Formats: sequence, structure tokens, C-alpha cells
Amino acid sequence: MDDHTPGPRSGRPPTSTDVARAAGVSQATVSYVLNDAPGVRISQETRVKVREAAERLGYAPHASARVLRTGRSDIVLIPTSTIPVGRLVAELDMAMSERLRRLGHTVVHFGDPRSRGVAAARVWAEWRPAAVFVEAHRLTAAAVSQLYAAGVATVLAFGPEPSPYAPTFVFDDGNVGACAAEHLIARGSAALAAVVPTEHGLDGFGLRRLEGVARVARAHDVPVARVDLPFDEERANEIATGWTRDPGARPDGVFAYNDEYAMLLMRALQDAGLDIPGDIAVVGADDLPLAPLLRPRLSSVRVLTDITPDDLAERLAKMIADGERDPATTIRASRTEMIVRESS
Amino acid sequence: MDDHTPGPRSGRPPTSTDVARAAGVSQATVSYVLNDAPGVRISQETRVKVREAAERLGYAPHASARVLRTGRSDIVLIPTSTIPVGRLVAELDMAMSERLRRLGHTVVHFGDPRSRGVAAARVWAEWRPAAVFVEAHRLTAAAVSQLYAAGVATVLAFGPEPSPYAPTFVFDDGNVGACAAEHLIARGSAALAAVVPTEHGLDGFGLRRLEGVARVARAHDVPVARVDLPFDEERANEIATGWTRDPGARPDGVFAYNDEYAMLLMRALQDAGLDIPGDIAVVGADDLPLAPLLRPRLSSVRVLTDITPDDLAERLAKMIADGERDPATTIRASRTEMIVRESS
Repeated sequence: MDDHTPGPRSGRPPTSTDVARAAGVSQATVSYVLNDAPGVRISQETRVKVREAAERLGYAPHASARVLRTGRSDIVLIPTSTIPVGRLVAELDMAMSERLRRLGHTVVHFGDPRSRGVAAARVWAEWRPAAVFVEAHRLTAAAVSQLYAAGVATVLAFGPEPSPYAPTFVFDDGNVGACAAEHLIARGSAALAAVVPTEHGLDGFGLRRLEGVARVARAHDVPVARVDLPFDEERANEIATGWTRDPGARPDGVFAYNDEYAMLLMRALQDAGLDIPGDIAVVGADDLPLAPLLRPRLSSVRVLTDITPDDLAERLAKMIADGERDPATTIRASRTEMIVRESS
Repeated sequence: MDDHTPGPRSGRPPTSTDVARAAGVSQATVSYVLNDAPGVRISQETRVKVREAAERLGYAPHASARVLRTGRSDIVLIPTSTIPVGRLVAELDMAMSERLRRLGHTVVHFGDPRSRGVAAARVWAEWRPAAVFVEAHRLTAAAVSQLYAAGVATVLAFGPEPSPYAPTFVFDDGNVGACAAEHLIARGSAALAAVVPTEHGLDGFGLRRLEGVARVARAHDVPVARVDLPFDEERANEIATGWTRDPGARPDGVFAYNDEYAMLLMRALQDAGLDIPGDIAVVGADDLPLAPLLRPRLSSVRVLTDITPDDLAERLAKMIADGERDPATTIRASRTEMIVRESS
């Protein structure tokens, strides 16, 4: 066999001993060179020899061995989540991961999305991550203790409310509903409705947005009807024709959960002969690219973050370095801005 | 300190030696019990004692130690990709990961999305994965050799064409454009246009869909104009008004890349006073929930997979078990179906 080509049939993967033998140096030297050990003087000639031998043999240093040596990895573990990943979350995740990588961390997504508590923590702990970034509702006191006992430097939760067990990145969906309600009431709506999607995984967000609508409406003595709506044209049509038949039950301002549900509802209202915003004002959320393409152009609550993905990555890296574990620590994320177009 | 509570301040993470001491058994026994070693007889009483001690101390077995012992992990590594994750891909990924987990594999997403070739392979190899599932264009002969040399059982590529270096899961985007063109020509369109989104990451898909349109159009002697379009209303309006001013340059059938670009283009065409489908027929792709909500209702190419995520997971598990490495092995994925509504 030509030993210059790392071949698929070479059997046993090459070890650092093989590299040491091929380069004519000690195994310790191989380890120093390939791990860029600081403070060790090794000639350039030896370094080149070791690197060439490693390359020739197809040797890759072993992440597991490094973890065992140092007792902790550089891993930021983001357990896989059941949250339907929207474009915003996917972009946050990608940008944050990129920055963490530049800061020397390895971002790993894995795990059973339905796992939680101590059983989940035990599986996460097997990787000896430096940090775990996970939905607040999956954490328990025992789970967090398990992670810290396994040497995890920091657990950063995320969710609509601060976790009692760990520092939390707080995304407050209630603000989104509140922002829509403030706008609808200011423009004169006197009977509100709020859409709560019935799809599993979205219902929680819907309820929190509804709570935000209800909080503002209460303060202004305006009634709020809850409208449970699957993403289904027929069901949307039933709601719209119901409102046509019984104008007394009809709201004059609707917060439609997000822009996609707003599109669904607007279509049904228009097909039922209702005028937007004359009969009913409609407000979406997320300010998706489709919002200005609708007729009337859709008003939408834009969600802004006070913190950029880069800032969040740097903050997390610092928390790892400091071993920050105080549950009182919160990073607030969402501000909102009302983008008023023609539908309200 | 109360040793019944694994505390955040306990310092050094507990080791299997600590568990052995607390349970009054040997370290080997701890290892047998916690790794469910087959064929080793240990009394139920001892098993309970070990598990309780491990739980009390907050001990988690060490994934890295297990990897070093067995020389290969159960990891299916899916390097993070730059592909903008649509709903379809996210669902495929989640369902496939779920099944692989049930088959005893650990699905891990990580890595620099822009890395490729041997440099990328070296980083992936550090995890000693059992399999790597990655975009075909990121693989080179040397990269695949590096992975196999590190003990990876199989590399499964995915992309629009079979990889010359590894078995490939082939997703043929050309079929999508071809399906749209067949339909448009069958309904009488005599001058086609195909939208290619200018956004980075989408342009490749756009070009492959355009190629599919062009292939069918050539066979029917129908001209095809390429329309480069960013997701931008102003640019869409310019194209639409251009076609109004110069009807001779106007196509009578447009494949709009996907449903979102179709929505953007339809809005611009309608604002410019053109009738859909009277002046121009429009076809989208992906059959998104918004398609039937547009007026006219949007015709769309639905992409079907011949293989379910469960089947793909099982196929990959079998490839790992068999050490399947033949680049001639391909799994074909996409069939298409034309959903005809009102826009064409």
C-alpha cells in the first residue's frame, strides 16, 4: 500500500504514536505541535516534520482525548429544540455561533428535543460542555445542579421569563401583543380580538402575545376576544362569515399573532366582504417580507433585540470565563416597534 | 456541605472513582453498571447502589472516555450548512434526527458553515463520528480519505448531483424548473422567463431550477429569459413596468423560483396593470401555505420525496453498519407534482 495516501482501507485509524514514529520524534512532541501548546520551544523544522507526517497519515487529533486531558471542552451546547425555527431565530443562532467560533468555542446542537430535567441534563453533561444554552422550561433545580457538578461553567436559559435556576436571556413575547394593542386602541379600536394559533409549538407564543394584548386592553377598559385559529382557510372563512352575520360580536381591531396568520385572516375577511381597515383593522407581527406585499399593506409589530448576536456571543463567552451562575442575571432581548401601513 | 445535593460549588466534577467509593464497589463495576455492559452478571442490589451513588454525586458518564475506549462514537455529524433552512429541510432534519436517535445514534450539528475540503474534514474527524452527512460540494477526494482514515464508517453527501467521492443523497432542483416549464408550455405559453434570486445562498438553487426550465424549453423550441431578482419591491416594479412598456419583450409564462418570489412578482405585475394569467401566467414552487391565499390563487410545483426521513435515517444506519463507501451509491430524492390553481 502506498503510505503517502491515507486510504479508506488502512484499517485502524492512525494514532499520535504512528505520527511520532513517522516523524522520528517523541509522542509528547507530536502532542505539543498539534495542540499548539503554548510556552514549549520546538524548532520550526520539527514542527513542519510533525505536521507533514500527520497530514500524510491522515491523523486528526482526538477531541475526546483533549477533553479528558483538560477536564472541560470548549463546547457551547445548544440542545435541539422543538420551537419551530423561524427565520429570525435561525439567523440569530447562525450569527451567534459564528462569533462563538471566532472566540474559540465549538457550538454543538444535539439532543432529544423533547427531553428535559435531570434526565436531559445527564445526557448533555456527557459532553462536558463549557456552557449550555437552553429553553428555560426544560431546566429544573436538579438539572442545573447536575450540569454544574459535571463541570459546566455556566448555564444560560432563554425564554419568556427569567429561570429561577440560571441566568436567562429573556425574550418577552407579551410586549409584542401589548405594542399591537396600544396602537389599535390609539387609532380608535373599541373591541379587540387576538388570534392564538392552535398549532402545537405556537400556542404558547400565542397565549403570551394574547396576555400582552389583554394587559393593555384592561388598562383602557377595552374588551378582548380570543380567536383560536389553525392555519386553515376554511376555519378562517367561518370566523369571517360569523362576524359578517353578527356585527355586534365583531371586533373592530384584530391582532393576528403574526404576519402569516394576518394574511390568512385578511384574505377571509375580504372574501366575506369586510373592509380593512374600515370595518376591521388588522395588525400582524414579525414584519415579514410579505407584509408590504399585501393589499392593504399590512401593519406589523417589528421585534428588535437590544443585543446583537455578536454581543450575546461575547456575553456568553465572558460568562463562561467568569463562571457566572447567578439566576438573578438576565439579558433582556425584545423591544418592539409598530410599523404602521394601510391595514390599521 | 450536604453531600446529598450535587452543588454548584463542589469544585472538581465527580469521577467514576468517587462513585465506586460511595457505593463501596470497584471502579470496573461502576463502569459495567453505568454503561449497561452486556454479558456481565451484577446483582440488582449492586446496580441500584451504583445508580443511586451516581445520582447523589451528580456523576455523568463521560462521552469522551467512551469514545476513546471504543475508538468510534455513535455520532452522526451533520456539519452546519450555509443553506438557508426552509421549513421542508428543517422538518426533514428533525424527523431524520429523531429516528437516528432511536436507532442509537447521536446526531450532532456543528462546525464552520463555510469550511470545506481537507481542513474541514480534519475538524470533523476530531469527533470520530460514525458518519458524516454533508453537502457534496464541500467534499474533496482528500477530505473523504481523511475521514475514512480517522475511522468514519461512511460519508453520505447530499446535493443536486452525485459526489464522485462518496455515496450521495441527490436532491434534483432541476426537476422543479422542468415541471413548471412542462406545465406552462402545455397551457400555451410561447415565451418563458425564469426568476433567479440574487440572494447569496439561493442563487445556486435558482440557477439549477433555471437549467431545468431551459432543458424543457429547448426541447419545445420555446425561448427562456433569465430574470435576476432580489427580494425587493422596487426592483420587481421596474421589471413589471419594463414589460408593460415593451410588450414584445414580455414573457407570457413565468416560473418565479418559489412561492415567495411569485408573490413579490405577482404584486408588481398587478400594480403595473397586467392580468394574471391573461397577460402572464405565473408559477411558484414549494407550495407554501400562502399559495392558495393569493389572488389569483398561485399555481405551484410541489416537491415530494421518494424517501421518508425515517427511511433515510434507517438507510444511513445500515450504511454505517455495513461501512458502505461506494460513490456509485445514490439515493434519489425529489419527485415533483404540479399544483394547478388560478395563476396559470
